[in-house]
Amino acid sequence: MNVLIVYAHPEPESLNGSLKELAVDTLKGEGHQVQVSDLYAMNWKAVLDEDDFKERMNPELFNPIMEQLNAVKKEAIPLDIKEEMDKVRWADVIIFQFPIWWSNFPAILKGWVDRVFFNGFAFNTVEMQSYDKGLLKSKKGMLSFTTGASRELYTDEGPHGEIETIINYFNHVLFELVGMEVLPYFAIFGPGAMSEKQREAELERFQEVIQNL
Amino acid sequence: MNVLIVYAHPEPESLNGSLKELAVDTLKGEGHQVQVSDLYAMNWKAVLDEDDFKERMNPELFNPIMEQLNAVKKEAIPLDIKEEMDKVRWADVIIFQFPIWWSNFPAILKGWVDRVFFNGFAFNTVEMQSYDKGLLKSKKGMLSFTTGASRELYTDEGPHGEIETIINYFNHVLFELVGMEVLPYFAIFGPGAMSEKQREAELERFQEVIQNL
Repeated sequence: MNVLIVYAHPEPESLNGSLKELAVDTLKGEGHQVQVSDLYAMNWKAVLDEDDFKERMNPELFNPIMEQLNAVKKEAIPLDIKEEMDKVRWADVIIFQFPIWWSNFPAILKGWVDRVFFNGFAFNTVEMQSYDKGLLKSKKGMLSFTTGASRELYTDEGPHGEIETIINYFNHVLFELVGMEVLPYFAIFGPGAMSEKQREAELERFQEVIQNL
Repeated sequence: MNVLIVYAHPEPESLNGSLKELAVDTLKGEGHQVQVSDLYAMNWKAVLDEDDFKERMNPELFNPIMEQLNAVKKEAIPLDIKEEMDKVRWADVIIFQFPIWWSNFPAILKGWVDRVFFNGFAFNTVEMQSYDKGLLKSKKGMLSFTTGASRELYTDEGPHGEIETIINYFNHVLFELVGMEVLPYFAIFGPGAMSEKQREAELERFQEVIQNL
């Protein structure tokens, strides 16, 4: 099995960093192939802008989604995006490993989606290819994240509301939209308030999930 | 009234650009003060990273949310963030004007939230200041966006699911979390499929909303 981990934490020694390392070691130990896109280490360009499109369909007015389709046809895709697309093509499973910031992806990870999941590569607005016709069919996607807040704060009764509401939405409009199958999310809630022993138990729980992917 | 428009579209001639211009003209015409943060034109740094923290509380391990609190106390905040904080302090109303990408903010706008809504400025994790104790109390926030998909595609029966599910969540964990009052969102669904006349009617509808802020 080929697994791509898209990892977005600025601190290698963070819990997210440990989760990423553990996933790599566990998967390799089981004979799988793994690639990691360490977005901070790669200094990943987060912002989709005109610089991504050197051969414009319309040089007068910049319409990103239409320029993406044109760039795929003309094979005029910037190298950093092309390399990520190659990893996506290669992968059977894609794991996003990240800290929840503002109940959402860190900007650098959102920018990976904005820039890599091209119209014409992951879906196609002209050919109406999305969901059951999505272009990344037969791949699986998994959100693996940590939160600052405890699980209780992320329920319908808690201040933030039930986190599954937003996670389910993201899974749907991201992975399912491009035809992928959604794997159950993995979350560690409020690790900052945990003892070392509790954190280790959470890492073990993660390892089991990864072993059973 | 002081209004800050945080605007995130790479194309000035886009519908989002027109909405931003219309809001500025309408508000000024009514005697209000307006500032615009044109994130693409400013070449806004989207990624929260170590470079934002020159006087580290912990130089060994980078914990962004704790370093934010420390930077506020030491008044060691980078100039680009400080300028945005000044605009936020000044504003009675903050409008986010953006295209929906992947049912979410463009990365550059998410990065504005990640980098500007500091712990110790917008909320405080140590003093437990959020929601009714949020630090941006008495301000109002509004999401104004365009979508590629039509309204029908963004309903419970449509492929994407009801967009209000995610917009309500964003309003809550973003504006309400920092103590702000949420204004009704404004959306133009599927403008690409509209006639010029329909688009003009949508702009008029927006102008009325802005006049009645």
